[in-house]
Amino acid sequence: MKILITGATGLIGTLLRVRLGDTGRYTISGIDARPIEDDSVADFTLADCFDYDAMAPAFEGQDAVVHLAANAPVETPWPDVLRNNIASTHNVYEAARQHGLKRLVFASSNHAVGNFELDEPYKSIGRGDYSLIDDDPANIPQVDHHVPIRPDSDYGVSKVFGEATGRYYHEHFGLEVACLRIGSVVPQNRPTNIRAYATWLSHGDLAHLVDRCLTADLGFEIFYGVSNNRWRFWDIEHGRRTIGYNPQDRAEDHPME
Amino acid sequence: MKILITGATGLIGTLLRVRLGDTGRYTISGIDARPIEDDSVADFTLADCFDYDAMAPAFEGQDAVVHLAANAPVETPWPDVLRNNIASTHNVYEAARQHGLKRLVFASSNHAVGNFELDEPYKSIGRGDYSLIDDDPANIPQVDHHVPIRPDSDYGVSKVFGEATGRYYHEHFGLEVACLRIGSVVPQNRPTNIRAYATWLSHGDLAHLVDRCLTADLGFEIFYGVSNNRWRFWDIEHGRRTIGYNPQDRAEDHPME
Repeated sequence: MKILITGATGLIGTLLRVRLGDTGRYTISGIDARPIEDDSVADFTLADCFDYDAMAPAFEGQDAVVHLAANAPVETPWPDVLRNNIASTHNVYEAARQHGLKRLVFASSNHAVGNFELDEPYKSIGRGDYSLIDDDPANIPQVDHHVPIRPDSDYGVSKVFGEATGRYYHEHFGLEVACLRIGSVVPQNRPTNIRAYATWLSHGDLAHLVDRCLTADLGFEIFYGVSNNRWRFWDIEHGRRTIGYNPQDRAEDHPME
Repeated sequence: MKILITGATGLIGTLLRVRLGDTGRYTISGIDARPIEDDSVADFTLADCFDYDAMAPAFEGQDAVVHLAANAPVETPWPDVLRNNIASTHNVYEAARQHGLKRLVFASSNHAVGNFELDEPYKSIGRGDYSLIDDDPANIPQVDHHVPIRPDSDYGVSKVFGEATGRYYHEHFGLEVACLRIGSVVPQNRPTNIRAYATWLSHGDLAHLVDRCLTADLGFEIFYGVSNNRWRFWDIEHGRRTIGYNPQDRAEDHPME
């Protein structure tokens, strides 16, 4: 299967190049506005996804695209969100359509629904206070793919935009689209703050999730990208049932140092 | 109450200037990239909402803004959608926040959920075929404010963007926001095609709906803008209960000529 990774030099792009490459089932190409430093990809296009004419040729001959290119910080100022997260994401969908790709995996974000954490019990859980749920994870109402969007930032709004574009491109053009509301992915690959005991997504579980999204049958779906953490409040049952997402890691196995 | 209407020279802007003005309860200002031809507003700013520095001063001293400025055709090409419907809409929310406005009424669109019309019974109803519902409107499942978004176009995606921005600005900055998924509003002020027997919104009902959105208590809400048509498939009960929307017109009272 030939796949293109946008934002291939970033944190997630780099770990996917390695881990998806290790499966031996993908021929991986990359595109990024920054040059790549190693030989982990079959082909690389140095281009900004904002520049349609420069980026679109990279889509030729691909089966699927994993779209990661964006400004990642939740505090990204609006002009950058508009350019790098909205306009560029439209270009990626359009290039996928123009070049007949079958599938697109979109790196959405938990920040598309981040404002649930203004409410209890999520607010307390994020601070490591589990008293409202009597220390029982079974009492945590799961935020699932049916909840209304509640973006917490311009960045979060841009992820809602990307999901909406995905639904449109699926229903009108037949593109298969998986949107991943990704949790806390960090270079250290372990929980690095108290909230992460709910929200952590390990590198291994992320690569597995993307692998399932590239491989399993699907039309348009929204999944949460989170490991099987004891205190998680984002649903993973939909991913488990729909595409066989079976996370192996748990934040509570990694005590704070 | 001092209100600003963006896109004041357009079809809806013009009818709102007249009809809201007739209530005697509003001091109306306008902003538009095109000049206004009459003396129906207290103040007018000739500016493009894409140009923040040019448009923002018009918000000073206003209580609320009715945001209509956008490219209205569902076929609007992406570069215009990005500029005039997305970037400009962000500017309107931001100017409202910066100038301390209390409320924003956003002209969303039925096209944010337009793909329900790919499915039955909406598809048949849109063609004037009521056989699937046994000619009984009580058998039409209503598309309400809880349904997932299903945009039918880049234009529809831009309306999802505007609704998501509204939710964010409400939850983070306290701006009161009403998003109106407006149906078929035409200069003739009557149904002009068979679909409009479901989707028509009369000028009078539209002005009444916007009036209620400016006046009634609300936080963040999504309402459908549709008259009380026999064959409508968009919910009006939420608007009736929440803000007292009480449409007076019915498409079936206007047979096709």
